[in-house]
Amino acid sequence: MSETKKTNIILFSGDYDKAMAAYIIANGAAAYDHEVTIFHTFWGLNALRKDENITVKKNFVEKMFGKMMPRGANKMGISKMNFAGFGPTMIKDVMKKHNAVPLPDLIDMAQEQEINLVACTMTMDLLGLQKEELLDEIEYAGVAAYLADAEDGNVNLFI
Amino acid sequence: MSETKKTNIILFSGDYDKAMAAYIIANGAAAYDHEVTIFHTFWGLNALRKDENITVKKNFVEKMFGKMMPRGANKMGISKMNFAGFGPTMIKDVMKKHNAVPLPDLIDMAQEQEINLVACTMTMDLLGLQKEELLDEIEYAGVAAYLADAEDGNVNLFI
Amino acid sequence: MSETKKTNIILFSGDYDKAMAAYIIANGAAAYDHEVTIFHTFWGLNALRKDENITVKKNFVEKMFGKMMPRGANKMGISKMNFAGFGPTMIKDVMKKHNAVPLPDLIDMAQEQEINLVACTMTMDLLGLQKEELLDEIEYAGVAAYLADAEDGNVNLFI
Repeated sequence: MSETKKTNIILFSGDYDKAMAAYIIANGAAAYDHEVTIFHTFWGLNALRKDENITVKKNFVEKMFGKMMPRGANKMGISKMNFAGFGPTMIKDVMKKHNAVPLPDLIDMAQEQEINLVACTMTMDLLGLQKEELLDEIEYAGVAAYLADAEDGNVNLFI
Repeated sequence: MSETKKTNIILFSGDYDKAMAAYIIANGAAAYDHEVTIFHTFWGLNALRKDENITVKKNFVEKMFGKMMPRGANKMGISKMNFAGFGPTMIKDVMKKHNAVPLPDLIDMAQEQEINLVACTMTMDLLGLQKEELLDEIEYAGVAAYLADAEDGNVNLFI
Repeated sequence: MSETKKTNIILFSGDYDKAMAAYIIANGAAAYDHEVTIFHTFWGLNALRKDENITVKKNFVEKMFGKMMPRGANKMGISKMNFAGFGPTMIKDVMKKHNAVPLPDLIDMAQEQEINLVACTMTMDLLGLQKEELLDEIEYAGVAAYLADAEDGNVNLFI
């Protein structure tokens, strides 16, 4: 009897490079038949935002957060050497040259591989993010659901 | 026979939002009957500092570290969008509006739930922090104690 | 029959203090007879760079990355309070005063303890780093090798 291995990643960071690392590990683990969950919390929720401007009712502070935070994976900055936005451009140029897979495609791939993409409802509420603003076909859960998965996990990471 | 599950978190970061994430996961795990330890090292030690100014003998560099580092959970900055201190204020306003639990209360709750709050003695020494400056009823240990806990841990995270 | 415990650390960060934490945990785990692997990816690769200037053929962007990224453990900045380079100097002064082991020595110690130091080939390619620029006697692998180690790991951390 072989049990399914489990990989559970908390994506807390809103950095392009850290989200890339999370999705590369997740896609790799899914390719090795792990059951994989990425639990997006705090700034990591930005990876799940839709590209376009969705109109939803928000209060003033929620609107400010909404404007200040990057809208989707493609707009996220990198953790080091951001150089007024020059960093991500360089990374993306280099990635294209090396045929590396950009973050939005890694997220598509994750959905095709049936990786569970979860948005943390507590921080959605805190940052004023609404379901309409996030990708379709993701799940919504809290810390209890994360712990239920992680306590039997083989690979648990906080990124 | 059911074995107790174990959650072991290294809190390395001195960011308000990351410390919140650590304490939310820890309190959640304790509510699910995990045995939980938060091992505070490097900048994560700041979460354990008392609010008031404690007078202890320090050398010049230790005094500088003492002044530059935030004194307690309530004074920590956030990892993103700090905007000259505007960020934490916004986060705290938003939290109050949503009845979310602020970090100092999450730490109280952790102590009530008998989560082991451990201060890393090696980095206390390095940063010149003394026991009098830290919260009461915490533990003091080094990397060996962390590893002894973590090697049987179900959920191990570095935050 | 006692099985060997395993510690697997992904070092993603290029910060001096985070790399120190990774190597202190790794050396501690090796001292407790764990089989230990540090998988260096993205900015964490800088910890493995040789100190000297190695001449290898690079294109323009690779040269820029090569110049902008710190050449070796001793040149890395710290994650907090960098203060235009003042931070690392202070940390190193404090460490010398307390007889703490500096990062390059922690890396030597790791090699003596037969910790597997692995460089992520995908990010080496991305950042234009070549084997000649990295420390001798390290290994080269990708995410598949990491996962094969980590899925049986006792302590898995992302730093």
